[in-house]
Amino acid sequence: MQSIDESTPFFDLVGSVRAMRKLKPDPVPIEMIWKVLNVGVQAPSGQNKQPWKFLLIQDPERKQWFAERYANAMQERFGLPVDPAKRGDKTPKGTLASIYHQMDHMAEAPYLLLVCGKRDWPFKVAEKDRVGLAPPNYGAVYPCVQNILLACRTLGLGAALTTMHQVFEDELHAHFGIPDTYGVVVTIPIGYPIGRFGPVTRIPAQEKTFLDHWDAGDS
Amino acid sequence: MQSIDESTPFFDLVGSVRAMRKLKPDPVPIEMIWKVLNVGVQAPSGQNKQPWKFLLIQDPERKQWFAERYANAMQERFGLPVDPAKRGDKTPKGTLASIYHQMDHMAEAPYLLLVCGKRDWPFKVAEKDRVGLAPPNYGAVYPCVQNILLACRTLGLGAALTTMHQVFEDELHAHFGIPDTYGVVVTIPIGYPIGRFGPVTRIPAQEKTFLDHWDAGDS
Repeated sequence: MQSIDESTPFFDLVGSVRAMRKLKPDPVPIEMIWKVLNVGVQAPSGQNKQPWKFLLIQDPERKQWFAERYANAMQERFGLPVDPAKRGDKTPKGTLASIYHQMDHMAEAPYLLLVCGKRDWPFKVAEKDRVGLAPPNYGAVYPCVQNILLACRTLGLGAALTTMHQVFEDELHAHFGIPDTYGVVVTIPIGYPIGRFGPVTRIPAQEKTFLDHWDAGDS
Repeated sequence: MQSIDESTPFFDLVGSVRAMRKLKPDPVPIEMIWKVLNVGVQAPSGQNKQPWKFLLIQDPERKQWFAERYANAMQERFGLPVDPAKRGDKTPKGTLASIYHQMDHMAEAPYLLLVCGKRDWPFKVAEKDRVGLAPPNYGAVYPCVQNILLACRTLGLGAALTTMHQVFEDELHAHFGIPDTYGVVVTIPIGYPIGRFGPVTRIPAQEKTFLDHWDAGDS
């Protein structure tokens, strides 16, 4: 694949925005992050309300705090020991290996970006501990997130989103002073990547499209 | 603003993706739509499940069917007569004027693109007629939609998303044979635009970002 930089056309860029979960601990100038986030905020939103806020974690102790809870949440969900040395023959392979790499080294990423959204999405959530709270504005925040991923790729920064923080979101809100009026939609560790950006593999749109009427039998 | 084409870098493109609601009825080759949708499907999704489907409406009668229900839904919500001649001194101005233009001419757009998402989003919706049905996968569909808007802009196509179809979504499902396993996330009328793409206006990211801790008092 050709090298990508700020002069690369969008069509040549979009197919190589892979989830990059292995990051170098090397510092990344904050000017690059501002550039990324200022691309993020170009996203559309209903009535141009721009209902996003960013929490950028760079402090080592706060990154460590987040990483520990994240690892516990992963253990709770997948049952794999937090300590890599204790995983034995359960050591994950393939994509799961890179997900665990992200977890094991999360505190070392130069930045943990939490993209937050105002809770004005017009659906109530009937979850055990969330009844009555509207979800964050996914319809605005996710386009912003996509812009962020495209901008990271343009600048050669590795990024990959995760939503596992939802397991400890109440604690997260308390620790970072996030008000109930916002939800944390995604966490994106950002840094220079280890390894190369390969192309993504996707089913062609033609196989995902119905003309004028859904095909009977396809569900 | 410089002219934009397929050679334009992403950073020079992203700030001019305005909601273009005034469209020419001129036909658009379907090859352009495949190009747009194949950019859309490059978006990331959890476990690469690609939980999107597209319903592309091009048949004049089906567009008319959609446009009529859309206009009724708008009237229900905003109270403005469906017939422009009966609006009198209530004729809308500014952004609302363009929203009404989109409504009045919806059946003339060459394409109405319905972007659908699999109902696997992990929140139940407690709405009067939707209890128990999970919402469509916003976290995958909206990044795909953002790619679609960026691709339309690159090719000089006008596009603007709306979610007003939700008012008549049950009827929509029945008419187009959309199974309950999918939700219609956005409707995007697409065509050559009337008027020019101007730059978007956004609050800079620096004013939307907290470093390491949310600012007390900001909510």
